[in-house]
Amino acid sequence: MPIVVMKFGGTSVGSVERIQAVADRVVRAREGGDDVIVVVSAMGDTTDDLTAMALEIADVPDPREMDMLLTAGERIAMSLLGIALNARGCRAASYTGSQAGIITDTQHGKAKIVEIRPKRVVEALEAGNVVVLAGFQGLSTRYEITTLGRGASDLTAVAMAGAVGADVCEIYTDVDGVYTADPRIVPDARRIDTISPDEMLELAASGAKVLQSRSVEMARRHGVQLHVRPSFGDAPGTWVREDGGPMEGVMISGAALDTDEAKVTIDAVPDRPGVAASIFKAIAAEAISVDMIVQNVSRDGTTDMSFTAPLAELPRLEGVLDALARDIGADGFSVDAGIAKLSLVGAGMKSHPGVAADMFDVLAGEGINIEMISTSPIRISCVIRKDLAERALRAVHERFGLAGGDGS
Amino acid sequence: MPIVVMKFGGTSVGSVERIQAVADRVVRAREGGDDVIVVVSAMGDTTDDLTAMALEIADVPDPREMDMLLTAGERIAMSLLGIALNARGCRAASYTGSQAGIITDTQHGKAKIVEIRPKRVVEALEAGNVVVLAGFQGLSTRYEITTLGRGASDLTAVAMAGAVGADVCEIYTDVDGVYTADPRIVPDARRIDTISPDEMLELAASGAKVLQSRSVEMARRHGVQLHVRPSFGDAPGTWVREDGGPMEGVMISGAALDTDEAKVTIDAVPDRPGVAASIFKAIAAEAISVDMIVQNVSRDGTTDMSFTAPLAELPRLEGVLDALARDIGADGFSVDAGIAKLSLVGAGMKSHPGVAADMFDVLAGEGINIEMISTSPIRISCVIRKDLAERALRAVHERFGLAGGDGS
Repeated sequence: MPIVVMKFGGTSVGSVERIQAVADRVVRAREGGDDVIVVVSAMGDTTDDLTAMALEIADVPDPREMDMLLTAGERIAMSLLGIALNARGCRAASYTGSQAGIITDTQHGKAKIVEIRPKRVVEALEAGNVVVLAGFQGLSTRYEITTLGRGASDLTAVAMAGAVGADVCEIYTDVDGVYTADPRIVPDARRIDTISPDEMLELAASGAKVLQSRSVEMARRHGVQLHVRPSFGDAPGTWVREDGGPMEGVMISGAALDTDEAKVTIDAVPDRPGVAASIFKAIAAEAISVDMIVQNVSRDGTTDMSFTAPLAELPRLEGVLDALARDIGADGFSVDAGIAKLSLVGAGMKSHPGVAADMFDVLAGEGINIEMISTSPIRISCVIRKDLAERALRAVHERFGLAGGDGS
Repeated sequence: MPIVVMKFGGTSVGSVERIQAVADRVVRAREGGDDVIVVVSAMGDTTDDLTAMALEIADVPDPREMDMLLTAGERIAMSLLGIALNARGCRAASYTGSQAGIITDTQHGKAKIVEIRPKRVVEALEAGNVVVLAGFQGLSTRYEITTLGRGASDLTAVAMAGAVGADVCEIYTDVDGVYTADPRIVPDARRIDTISPDEMLELAASGAKVLQSRSVEMARRHGVQLHVRPSFGDAPGTWVREDGGPMEGVMISGAALDTDEAKVTIDAVPDRPGVAASIFKAIAAEAISVDMIVQNVSRDGTTDMSFTAPLAELPRLEGVLDALARDIGADGFSVDAGIAKLSLVGAGMKSHPGVAADMFDVLAGEGINIEMISTSPIRISCVIRKDLAERALRAVHERFGLAGGDGS
């Protein structure tokens, strides 16, 4: 039988009533003849509430214990859904990440999945059960409970979908799909019917919140089709899959704004071979992701090195840079939290070389200065002042014809 | 190093502040040089709150899923305590029942421990950790998460104490020890310094709430010394251990009242061999414990059979008896929920044959009718009307000199 993975986030299972509604929806899918795996997050604010208790007790809670604590959240949501399904005569059994064979590395709080051993899940499906699976969590190679980082229930769903060869991984959210831009900022943004994994990945990495880039990347690698759907109602949502047809004529799929990053500049870095490697190795060793690395032209044997990094990582990053700047003989570093990253994404860019120039032109027309630029074959990102960012997004969205209508 | 097991109930870990206080106490024990295993229940009303959510979703929640749900409670308490201990520089790691090797049978909601495989706990102790262990839960022989029944965190503590050869299992409660009678009913009841496991078992089985008879029985079987102590303050508490010395002269250790049972009578049971066996086998097959079985003298080839059973089990028991009374050709059955069981317990009874007579005399003096009697070598229990029970307890307590003073 075809297998479908359905993933519901914390809002979708945020109350007993909502869990009942999710159960109804799962029963419909099951009655449609599919084998069903449901992945759930913790109910509503559970994760935040548990974190708050831990922070009352300790400024820096022990990471192993913190993972043990937070995994209680999905355990509650999944067993309540299991109860709701069984009460509807739909046989269901819930499994923790550990029980479901989600094996991770040992990095508490942000573990990476290293392997899926879905034997128990497959047996449960074969025995006629709906499998309810805890998102966000796994078991490390040292047999310790781990979590995969905030929002990683999508990742659990996609990874399990890949491991069991599911036909589709449905991501249920409180929006009704992926949009050409954030509709709260751009009122005439249009829902995208189908988008390629490459484009979705660039959009997600550029600040679109609907899907995590980590999950899209895993879906792409394992050839898992994603279907982003609204939790409430039956709107068609957005498919993320290789499907050239309807997109052929479209140059730009969407625009995104990321306001959760800061610009970091290391001043007067000695310009010698290996210096960039030593900087970014030291940062990577702390598992901090950086983006948009720009090195200025060298002057007097030194160069300024800039990059963007998540605001949330700044305290740890500053610790690394304090030591690093001394070690490499740089003048020091500065942090600018007042920036935003505006990105345009579209597979059609490959064959339309003028897109970057058009984007810069739109920003110039709005009197907006561009502080950093980075491009990929299907994406252009510009760092601009944060307070101008929403205006810039609307202008770019309009210029590239992303608004409702024929979508061309 | 000597190992001490410290068990804290739901009230003792009922808030962040109380978890901090428990952590302080554990740190003191650890600094005293002991290896420490801490067993915790779920915080405060967590188990009730989770149960209430499940009952909103289903009238009869799936038992496997229910166990999955409830075990989240201890998980939260134990990891918060783990965080509190590590924050004090006291290395600690928390373990679920499953991780700690608490292997049970497959009876969800009231599983029995069949084996303890404490390898991981012992390794964690040897590595210098305080082990924080979830009470109330285990892993079944079919690898499913189970719970051991309400209040069974004591059982976890005692079983683990036996498995690792702990010197003592300390049970922290919101009272300061075991009393000669419930102090809320008998104001001059006296705290008992030391009581034998046999006596404690009879007291627990007779309605004393401080310890579960299941836990006392396990402690007796494995030779584990119990120490019942107050969670707050440093009062000496009550020791449960084989320790004849100071108790030699004491005839009666305590009196207890059980108001959570009903009297069940099966009317006109055909008096033939095997009929009692078939009745109580059918009841035992439903895992319902009965007590005080009394069979009247046979008349006209039939006899009335009475016993007591927990009020909470009545709905299920009535289902069993409906079918059973027909099968064995009895006239039917009746249930009387208006009873109480008053018990006197004391090892000294063995050598003082007049105790029973004295007890009946006290009740007669109060004008209280005795409906059923059952005795063991160290206990006498009488079933009386529930509305007279507290008066009876006070009268018996006074007659046998259990009040404060020299305790003789």
